[in-house]
Amino acid sequence: MGDFRAPALDTVHLAIIGIGERSLAQIEQLVRIPHVELVGLCDLRPEAAEAAAARVQALCGMRPAIFSGDEAAYLRMLRELRPDAVIISTSWEQHAPMAVAVMEHGAHAFVEVPLATTLEGLWQVVDAAERTRRHCMMLENVNYGRDELMFLNMVRRGLIGELLHGEAAYIHELRQQMLTAGSWRDEHFIARNGNLYPTHGIGPIAQYMNIARGEDTFDRIVSFGSPAAGRELFAREHLPEGHPLRGVRFGCADINTSIIRTRLGRTILVQWDETSPRPYDRKNLIQGTRGTLAGFPTRMAGDFLEATAPPNPNPADGYDRDLHPWWCGPAAVEEMHARWDHPLYKRLGAQAAAIDSRGGMNYLLFSRIIECLHRGEPTDQNVYEGALWSAIAPLSEKSVHEGGTPQLFPDFTRGDRIHTAPLGIVE
Amino acid sequence: MGDFRAPALDTVHLAIIGIGERSLAQIEQLVRIPHVELVGLCDLRPEAAEAAAARVQALCGMRPAIFSGDEAAYLRMLRELRPDAVIISTSWEQHAPMAVAVMEHGAHAFVEVPLATTLEGLWQVVDAAERTRRHCMMLENVNYGRDELMFLNMVRRGLIGELLHGEAAYIHELRQQMLTAGSWRDEHFIARNGNLYPTHGIGPIAQYMNIARGEDTFDRIVSFGSPAAGRELFAREHLPEGHPLRGVRFGCADINTSIIRTRLGRTILVQWDETSPRPYDRKNLIQGTRGTLAGFPTRMAGDFLEATAPPNPNPADGYDRDLHPWWCGPAAVEEMHARWDHPLYKRLGAQAAAIDSRGGMNYLLFSRIIECLHRGEPTDQNVYEGALWSAIAPLSEKSVHEGGTPQLFPDFTRGDRIHTAPLGIVE
Repeated sequence: MGDFRAPALDTVHLAIIGIGERSLAQIEQLVRIPHVELVGLCDLRPEAAEAAAARVQALCGMRPAIFSGDEAAYLRMLRELRPDAVIISTSWEQHAPMAVAVMEHGAHAFVEVPLATTLEGLWQVVDAAERTRRHCMMLENVNYGRDELMFLNMVRRGLIGELLHGEAAYIHELRQQMLTAGSWRDEHFIARNGNLYPTHGIGPIAQYMNIARGEDTFDRIVSFGSPAAGRELFAREHLPEGHPLRGVRFGCADINTSIIRTRLGRTILVQWDETSPRPYDRKNLIQGTRGTLAGFPTRMAGDFLEATAPPNPNPADGYDRDLHPWWCGPAAVEEMHARWDHPLYKRLGAQAAAIDSRGGMNYLLFSRIIECLHRGEPTDQNVYEGALWSAIAPLSEKSVHEGGTPQLFPDFTRGDRIHTAPLGIVE
Repeated sequence: MGDFRAPALDTVHLAIIGIGERSLAQIEQLVRIPHVELVGLCDLRPEAAEAAAARVQALCGMRPAIFSGDEAAYLRMLRELRPDAVIISTSWEQHAPMAVAVMEHGAHAFVEVPLATTLEGLWQVVDAAERTRRHCMMLENVNYGRDELMFLNMVRRGLIGELLHGEAAYIHELRQQMLTAGSWRDEHFIARNGNLYPTHGIGPIAQYMNIARGEDTFDRIVSFGSPAAGRELFAREHLPEGHPLRGVRFGCADINTSIIRTRLGRTILVQWDETSPRPYDRKNLIQGTRGTLAGFPTRMAGDFLEATAPPNPNPADGYDRDLHPWWCGPAAVEEMHARWDHPLYKRLGAQAAAIDSRGGMNYLLFSRIIECLHRGEPTDQNVYEGALWSAIAPLSEKSVHEGGTPQLFPDFTRGDRIHTAPLGIVE
């Protein structure tokens, strides 16, 4: 299924399971994309589905059917509407069983990150995709960020030489989510300990390296967690008396640090922290024999920059600017954007940024999905990539539990990756 | 020996083994420090020792004795001069046997990084220090950098809360050293594979965390190396035909990435790269429950900054500046320097910066060493810290060789660390 193509669809009849705050923003983007018709919306809470349906009607004049009220509502929607494709935006542990059910009802599944929380769940999803011959793509939107697309373009053109090492992270202080008591996320922070949310960081790095497409794939991972202190501290200081999270013991490290080694011997640092007072960072660093590209802030070093890198800003550290590489400044980044922005960003970036608060990455993601389904082309991420990126969570948990012992990744492609082409530079 | 005090010395009679480019700069600083007399200089090459002696004479009117010509010259110097203290600035593999010999001749040993390259060598040095009751301090100069001293001061005052995680690196592209054919360093890059040069990065982080002083120490390490490609590429493209390093197979990864877990469960990322086109970085990141301090460039986040952090410069990434921490800007860093600069830096920083091209860290290091010997006080780094920091190299080699398997650190203090006070804030 690495390069799987489904029959082209003139119009994609789309349904959504799980209407949260995030889905509402997505819906506003989806209705603007050509060749898509939003036919169904499902949520446990009738008022959420109702509000979203009203919004769709206001935007495009068509009203999707709504399904709600109980855990089986999404199955009724699948049976009654027979949609072509379904977006699954529910809590993490529901992703895998819902994706399997969606495919078994003949629809392509598009699943919020992660694809599943256990290796068993990931295999069930992979097996279902192969059995039903349906797309199952994890919705890793970060791969559609402007810089991530540009780095992919630069890497593919060989600007930084042979790839050696990457760094990925999701560092995003989100403790204020604890104020909304009873979030299903809290349960993960209480009961698990690993890198529970790796895909935003690892997705772009894995694409740069052609992981699971050709010779290379993830071989093993080691993982360590720091002490778990920040959530209890936050509960003590910011939650009201009687809040159910006060006094709760959180098992999950404030920051998880892991290293992946690939079959070709490349290394990838992967970090995750939603708890510490540490500024937002996805790292997005890719290092080759001829240069290094990095994010947060965007910066680059290497011969391809020619004379654009400014001198070392801190000569007091004994660093000789004539002999060593240095990061280019913002002007050179601008120049690189002008030269190396991804064709997809050039084509759709401006309209994406205008209607998507996340800088356009969600709009590009959904535009590409509908485009691929409409044309009968492979999606940009296949089911094996979603499974492999998601597998970091359960494998890191096992490594942490076993004191940092290396854990081997399964090859979800069962060796078939060798026949899958690297993701091209989509025009 | 954790808090070991030797009898106070009115004048410290100092000798140096190994006169490289670096020693010459050090000598110019040493002769400016009170209570020190440079009595002997030793190098295999008579011309190097002679030039240094002439320089000393020109600077302070006294001429040290010189010893050279063969491998036993330093032993003759130790026997004939009976110095109080000896600086060892030779190639890595000579550090341990020379330190042992220095202490056995009754002198305190001050050893360039690393203290030794093998665990056996590290134990020999520790055993010799305990047997002879002499100081053996590794010369980790980075611990005397302005920001490192300030961070230590801030951490000790509790500004970032309970410490959770640190990040240390030595990323410094030094391939042009290969142009000087036959450097002993090349042999390490050919034959070994690990983090061969960890101490500049780890030294400050270990001091922030009170490692090997009290309850906590390094427990285990995991390590992975990237492919080794950059040195062969450099040889092919930059070394002349017939250069002995052309066509040589280098065994050492371009970038090594390791994780240390401490006994208290803290984590430390440690990276090393002297090969890739990646800009200079020592990371110097320390993360606590109430804030994060980081270097390269210097930046901070946390409640202690109050309202000094600027808004998120890139709102397009969907990051809400009102809810999340963000790095302070350069103005706030200046403010923090004014408030939290270490007393030692305030006392000696200006004169140090004036005569030391490395921003003053070497001058502060040697000033403190002479001060401690003169007053009969413990040195700022004890032999166990030097041994523990250096042990990262051989243990990372073993972990890399065994596919990332965790390696346990020895406790060089044999449990005695519990009685050793944390390094104080020296006035």
